[in-house]
Amino acid sequence: MSENRIYNFNAGPAALPLPVLEEIQSSFLNFQNSGMSVTEISHRSTYFDDVINDAVDRAKRLLKLDDRFRVLFIQGGASMQFAMIPMNFLANGKTADFVNTGTWSTKAINEARLLDKKINVVASSEDKDFSYIPKDITFSKDADFIHLTSNNTIKGTQWADFPDTNGVPIIADMSSDIFSRTLDMEKFGMIYAGAQKNLGPSGTCMVILRQDLLDKAEDALPTMLKYSTYADKNSMYNTPPCFGIYTIDLVLKWIEEEMGGLEKVEEFNIQKAAVLYDFIDSSSFYRTTAEKYSKSLMNVTFRLPTEELEQKFIAMATEKGFGGLKGHRSVGGCRASIYNAATKEGMKALVNFMDAFEGENK
Amino acid sequence: MSENRIYNFNAGPAALPLPVLEEIQSSFLNFQNSGMSVTEISHRSTYFDDVINDAVDRAKRLLKLDDRFRVLFIQGGASMQFAMIPMNFLANGKTADFVNTGTWSTKAINEARLLDKKINVVASSEDKDFSYIPKDITFSKDADFIHLTSNNTIKGTQWADFPDTNGVPIIADMSSDIFSRTLDMEKFGMIYAGAQKNLGPSGTCMVILRQDLLDKAEDALPTMLKYSTYADKNSMYNTPPCFGIYTIDLVLKWIEEEMGGLEKVEEFNIQKAAVLYDFIDSSSFYRTTAEKYSKSLMNVTFRLPTEELEQKFIAMATEKGFGGLKGHRSVGGCRASIYNAATKEGMKALVNFMDAFEGENK
Repeated sequence: MSENRIYNFNAGPAALPLPVLEEIQSSFLNFQNSGMSVTEISHRSTYFDDVINDAVDRAKRLLKLDDRFRVLFIQGGASMQFAMIPMNFLANGKTADFVNTGTWSTKAINEARLLDKKINVVASSEDKDFSYIPKDITFSKDADFIHLTSNNTIKGTQWADFPDTNGVPIIADMSSDIFSRTLDMEKFGMIYAGAQKNLGPSGTCMVILRQDLLDKAEDALPTMLKYSTYADKNSMYNTPPCFGIYTIDLVLKWIEEEMGGLEKVEEFNIQKAAVLYDFIDSSSFYRTTAEKYSKSLMNVTFRLPTEELEQKFIAMATEKGFGGLKGHRSVGGCRASIYNAATKEGMKALVNFMDAFEGENK
Repeated sequence: MSENRIYNFNAGPAALPLPVLEEIQSSFLNFQNSGMSVTEISHRSTYFDDVINDAVDRAKRLLKLDDRFRVLFIQGGASMQFAMIPMNFLANGKTADFVNTGTWSTKAINEARLLDKKINVVASSEDKDFSYIPKDITFSKDADFIHLTSNNTIKGTQWADFPDTNGVPIIADMSSDIFSRTLDMEKFGMIYAGAQKNLGPSGTCMVILRQDLLDKAEDALPTMLKYSTYADKNSMYNTPPCFGIYTIDLVLKWIEEEMGGLEKVEEFNIQKAAVLYDFIDSSSFYRTTAEKYSKSLMNVTFRLPTEELEQKFIAMATEKGFGGLKGHRSVGGCRASIYNAATKEGMKALVNFMDAFEGENK
């Protein structure tokens, strides 16, 4: 740990790669020799054009996107997307299938219903408290798209792979696992992600959208709620969230140049999660909460024998420099969020601490 | 100029106070001894609670707001507000007056019309290319609110004072002059401002809204497009733009503690603008474009004898370390944006440069 930094297991906003933070810091008063902070440059300048174009290009290279895909930056978080998706893609008798795997899927479903759109919830894991990802789903024949949440930060579940939908495009909220693994983008019409877990600071949502969905989108909408507004102007119809896009660009650069691309990142994340899951599986003191085949590589949710011990564990962990281990307020328990920026060193330190805590409190 | 920083006259994103940038830089890897960057702390932590509450409290103190007013942070810039305002406040046969003083007012008007709302454009300065602020306006008897843009960054015009509306609340887009002067808030039902001129980085819009307007607002709207969503959760229904709110808090602290409050800031801005306007008025080479009584204290728009000289002027200024002096691409000419963070030293340096350029090119 440098400069008294902690091991940060926050669910989001979350840890960012230290080299990215250091680069932001060192150039903060004078970006690219402009004599201005990155927060002070015009979004109409070549300085910023270079930033946003580099971020788009890196996203396309990392995910191997062909020219059918547009990379957009939109404000309002994934929550704004929950409204924009039905507004743009469910006009004129169109219909969509939704899979419900927890809080965020539920919010997306509720927002579509609030807008009085025709949707079907074709599968749900609510029967077992969202502890698993549904399998063998039968999708509707007339669905224009299928919406799902790729990773549930609260319950610690994740789609290990994505269903065969017979060509119907999947729209996926990937807020908590985008750029954490390779993707077969042939299955997706759109993926979107609030930046604050794997990509950058809060306040910027990355949207990757296929042109054929854009072409069929509803047009009679408020300007800022239409995807075409962003696609037509390279996300700069109005002033975009420049600092967020800049940080995302640096994170993507780090993934590409330091980590070696998404294949390497995926391997790294599997290894990191294994350190923690293997330890918990070998323990009779700690237990995970998600079904085995649905366990998330990003959010490891676990319990201790009692709530008292959980409180003691979190308090002592905080004292020892492990932050963010408290479970989501809606479910309790413990959670280690281990996005791309989490280090193996941090994982080992956490397991050592957990082992010692078990020894003292068993 | 420290660290090779330029004199930054950008219209927005714009110069921020150097002490604010320095504070962000120095604590960027370890915010408030948390061991995390401010971009890595949870918005549900006491660290961030302290930030957002401090920003709200400072805004209320600076504008002398009583408890009728709510201070909110919303994403999407002023452009998103152009849609949210009619969606929230113009349901069920309500109607509003709009004053058109240029590009941004026009966008607000167009967005209300796109939503098929009943509005009246009661005054416009389009007849003289938006070079003045309309006077002696007759407002509609049945208007629920009056919308205006307090400062036009493109044409360099500004409302010197606000009309008497017989108690009908004014809703004002103050993106380019919020916190640049004192305000009689009794006249306003809502003011809003994209942060990237006088407040902070792009990506956060500050909305100050009176409770009685909030109480009467439309409820059947998408969650992220309702003001009540933000008011009910202290702007944290979902993850807010934390870095933007943090920077705004530091800027408000700088206004309060370093500048000495809005009265002092207003005096300072009047003096700063006078340096430039007095020089231009005394010159036969440069000329301003706005009507005298409508001249903006924030954006000084001016022309040179020919477009060739303007190009030469902007190029040479850039070379000498004066940035952002090119007029908006829709109008051409020159513009010096001199928001709160512009220094008197910078004003004097600019005038000296302009004087020398005049001598060499007259």
